[in-house]
Amino acid sequence: MRRTIATVCLSGTLADKLDAAAAAGFAGVEIFENDLIASPWSPERVRERCAELGLSLDLYQPFRDFEAVGPDQLRRNLRRAEHKFDLMERLGTDTILVCSSVSADAVDDDELAAAQLRALAERAERRGLRVAYEALAWGRHVDTWEHAWDIVRRGDHPALGLCLDSFHVLSRAGDGSGVTSMSGISGIDGDKLFFLQLADAPRLHMDVLQWSRHHRLFPGQGAFDLVTFTGHVLAAGYRGPLSLEVFNDVFRQSEPRRAAVDAMRSLVALEEAVGRRSPRARERIELAAPPPAPEPTGYAFTELAVDGESGTEVARALAAMGFAHVGQHRSKPVQLWQQGQARVLLNSGDATATAVSALAVETPDPVTSARRAEALLAPPVPRTRGPAEADLNAVAAPDGTAVFFCRTGADRAGWWADFILTGSAPDTGTALTGVDHVALAQPFDHFDEATLFYRAVLGLDPRHDSEFAAPFGLVRNRVVSDPHGRVRIALHGTVLRRGEWAPGVPDPQHIAFASTDIFTSARVMRDRGAPLLSIPDNYYDDLEARLDLDPTLLARLRECRVLYDRDADGEFFHFHTEVLGSRVFFEVVQRIGGYAGYGAANAPVRMAAHREARRHPS
Amino acid sequence: MRRTIATVCLSGTLADKLDAAAAAGFAGVEIFENDLIASPWSPERVRERCAELGLSLDLYQPFRDFEAVGPDQLRRNLRRAEHKFDLMERLGTDTILVCSSVSADAVDDDELAAAQLRALAERAERRGLRVAYEALAWGRHVDTWEHAWDIVRRGDHPALGLCLDSFHVLSRAGDGSGVTSMSGISGIDGDKLFFLQLADAPRLHMDVLQWSRHHRLFPGQGAFDLVTFTGHVLAAGYRGPLSLEVFNDVFRQSEPRRAAVDAMRSLVALEEAVGRRSPRARERIELAAPPPAPEPTGYAFTELAVDGESGTEVARALAAMGFAHVGQHRSKPVQLWQQGQARVLLNSGDATATAVSALAVETPDPVTSARRAEALLAPPVPRTRGPAEADLNAVAAPDGTAVFFCRTGADRAGWWADFILTGSAPDTGTALTGVDHVALAQPFDHFDEATLFYRAVLGLDPRHDSEFAAPFGLVRNRVVSDPHGRVRIALHGTVLRRGEWAPGVPDPQHIAFASTDIFTSARVMRDRGAPLLSIPDNYYDDLEARLDLDPTLLARLRECRVLYDRDADGEFFHFHTEVLGSRVFFEVVQRIGGYAGYGAANAPVRMAAHREARRHPS
Repeated sequence: MRRTIATVCLSGTLADKLDAAAAAGFAGVEIFENDLIASPWSPERVRERCAELGLSLDLYQPFRDFEAVGPDQLRRNLRRAEHKFDLMERLGTDTILVCSSVSADAVDDDELAAAQLRALAERAERRGLRVAYEALAWGRHVDTWEHAWDIVRRGDHPALGLCLDSFHVLSRAGDGSGVTSMSGISGIDGDKLFFLQLADAPRLHMDVLQWSRHHRLFPGQGAFDLVTFTGHVLAAGYRGPLSLEVFNDVFRQSEPRRAAVDAMRSLVALEEAVGRRSPRARERIELAAPPPAPEPTGYAFTELAVDGESGTEVARALAAMGFAHVGQHRSKPVQLWQQGQARVLLNSGDATATAVSALAVETPDPVTSARRAEALLAPPVPRTRGPAEADLNAVAAPDGTAVFFCRTGADRAGWWADFILTGSAPDTGTALTGVDHVALAQPFDHFDEATLFYRAVLGLDPRHDSEFAAPFGLVRNRVVSDPHGRVRIALHGTVLRRGEWAPGVPDPQHIAFASTDIFTSARVMRDRGAPLLSIPDNYYDDLEARLDLDPTLLARLRECRVLYDRDADGEFFHFHTEVLGSRVFFEVVQRIGGYAGYGAANAPVRMAAHREARRHPS
Repeated sequence: MRRTIATVCLSGTLADKLDAAAAAGFAGVEIFENDLIASPWSPERVRERCAELGLSLDLYQPFRDFEAVGPDQLRRNLRRAEHKFDLMERLGTDTILVCSSVSADAVDDDELAAAQLRALAERAERRGLRVAYEALAWGRHVDTWEHAWDIVRRGDHPALGLCLDSFHVLSRAGDGSGVTSMSGISGIDGDKLFFLQLADAPRLHMDVLQWSRHHRLFPGQGAFDLVTFTGHVLAAGYRGPLSLEVFNDVFRQSEPRRAAVDAMRSLVALEEAVGRRSPRARERIELAAPPPAPEPTGYAFTELAVDGESGTEVARALAAMGFAHVGQHRSKPVQLWQQGQARVLLNSGDATATAVSALAVETPDPVTSARRAEALLAPPVPRTRGPAEADLNAVAAPDGTAVFFCRTGADRAGWWADFILTGSAPDTGTALTGVDHVALAQPFDHFDEATLFYRAVLGLDPRHDSEFAAPFGLVRNRVVSDPHGRVRIALHGTVLRRGEWAPGVPDPQHIAFASTDIFTSARVMRDRGAPLLSIPDNYYDDLEARLDLDPTLLARLRECRVLYDRDADGEFFHFHTEVLGSRVFFEVVQRIGGYAGYGAANAPVRMAAHREARRHPS
């Protein structure tokens, strides 16, 4: 099947959009009318440019408010259609999308609608064109695919068929009204399925038109079950392209080449998931799927970029937390620090600001992991390496963090062999065992792209979403992880941009280490001089008022400045260091029972404390 | 009456918020619990700091999910309340907000709710405290003010009263369900009205909780009729403070001192409007109102900041449009250009980029206009002037544009006298008569502040809202104008930030001149070499398909590259120059009949053409 994208998904002028679609490997585009109207290119020039770029023109859209009108209005609408047919001939595209009328002039008469669509199809057929009719979820009389399909059948003309848009189907199928569902789609006559538009979306409780026009997402970024949906469409015998039509406020202002890659990644991952569900669907898709994701088994290491001053500060903090500087890179200014299974590299090679610069994921098959990443359009990270050094496979995540694929053997070959061991040993008295999660700040307008990247490339699924009011703006949190919680990446970002006024600490990133005994960790680290964050007494007064905790436990929390949360399945204890350098800190966490969260309720308290620590350094 | 603000309205830590509230002149604050919890200050220190700042602590909020529960839960809730009462004593605040329960544990039993609230009030009274009960619009059983008031009356205790929040009342009163209204509010016993929270909001069709938590606005920025609402509350005999409680995603990340000034301006303007409606309400408010806004009668001039190169470019364009350089400032590098009633100053004094740097509004009483602006916290713009030059009153709009108040006398005294006349005369052949509107790009996070600024300071009301998909992101448009359309300011901004990738022309600003004959204007200006913007043929093909225009008219539009729009009341013709310097262009418009818009449907075409002109300069 061919992969296509509607020009409306991308930012820029028509020229920008076509370039971006071609660069990302799309085979064709849907031309969104307004993009053409605002273009200085004649339809012939657009056609020529698409040919140069290897793009087909698969659909012209949308044609609105056509059907079920009185005779005068019909005459005007047919005249309008003939003008657009002229245009389509010049463009060299053969299918026009007609969406169900939202006009107050339209009457509720399916026979009339069908007859008028048939008349339109007759005119289209004379020119070798065809009409794909689609039910808008907010259509005046026709707002379900079943209704549109019924009208297409009544119209009964070879040049009249159905267009299915996953948003219009799934936004209504999930609203509990029971008036529409997706299960019947596989029963549609495949030859009458003229076009398929795919879009995901978050579940929002709002006006469906606004939801559709502002909040659509690429497949895999939202909450819709597009795998089942697409499976039904393929089962019906659909043979047209898989086309993306996504209206999204953020994508509308994003760099279009980047957005087109995000779009392509979503489609490749969707096809893979559909194919995995059904071998017949896989055959129908025909396109090569990326190699399956080897399941990540943990973190090999996390790398922090540091400069001279912050390097010293971070090293001192790690030492106080029981880490030892166990290795030194053979050719680069990189230190390896370790405690339990937690390994942190401090790289002072080319840092401009302290940051999490790389994650290294343990995988049973680094080469396949890297091949998969490449198939999913992850940009490779070029690395310089010495003659005897390991060839590490790395790609760049959307926020620029390098993601390495490693297999840390028991023989300590591979990346480990690049380090000369110092002979130092960690202090196990701080009760740390490994990494619980790594938290990466995301620019707000790349949040959905990042979700899809980790989901598609590493096979990590979103398992935890939260949004909370932080001192300097609303913060969105999403954790992607493997099913066993061995690789958990907490993505967080402000819902809008972070206000320029925001003082103190801009969007810090952190590594959370797992402790087997949070109070021991806190006491020993404090005694060793770790720069632990001070938490206000007011927090503990509120815990006391709110939770009716055992007084001994509360006293220990208060004494050790440990934060607390609980859910139905367990408890969560955590504390943090101050921010080190410009934007990195460490967290120590202990999970009791099946607690699944990340203490998001405490995050505003931590953020205010970080601000306070910057205002009044201890 | 006292003016207070909830700390939740502002960004930052509690310390930042208190500083900002005091600096803007608020008399007190509502302490939002989470702000206190995250603060390192003890309640005693908060009390002390408020005293230092001259702020009272008017409310502690919120206390959730208290009433209509079983005996065990009641015991836990009372324990929780006693902890909060301890805190309130330490803070020195006497009123706690209890909002109607959203808990699944709450039962639908008004008698039980009333009895339990009475029990809470008894405990509060022992400590000299009181309980203000509020219906959340999404409360589980209690979601209207009428219902909450009924429960308060049943509770029948002197320490139990009602809190009214305009959002909870008006979000429901306008939903057509008819279950609640605001007209009965004036019948409430004033002594039982313990607290009043004010918030505005745009009319959105979405989940009411999300609407409330993310999209509230300060009074005068949204669609709620707060003047009538507040009038009812005052008529009931309410004597507490007028307090703002606004949850807004943008304000949460804005500089808090600036947001607090915006908040104060909204309250002063609301009081003025309430007082204007009712002399009794004015007496009750007691606070000094700003002097009424003298009605602006037009533009005296618009000033562009230019540098050497762009100054030449702009001057050449103005000359081609029929303007003449009629005057030169006595002491500054400022040229006065004129054509009809349109006057443009080109100021090369301290420009870094071409921009609309000032608007001068004609007012019958510049001194009163300036006094009003000052009373509404508009920051004055300091001006240097020569010994014989006019003392112009100017304030800074939120986007930094200077707003001057002028009276251009027939004797050409005042600002006009600062110019030495050159003797040049405009060419009237271009059919321009004056300024139709000035369009100013707004940073997206100051859009609502700008609306309120022009509304409150100049008395210009929002009369036209639109939102459209432009090539580089969604754009929001709002025109504020006087009732006669003599001073129209079109505010526009991206809905999110503008994407960093966006090429070409960042957020241009423009001056639109009125023409009495658009085709003459276009032809003459083109002949004189004006840098007019080229519009694609596709646009005219679409006009033809869409509108069934008279072929002669269509041909003239196409020939002259004039854009067209129409509404029920009239027609609109317009064209534009290319962008001059970094971000300014001119528009020429002609209105036929009562057309009320600004051709927003054509704006994306114009924007793409501007991008194209930059890519391929003519």
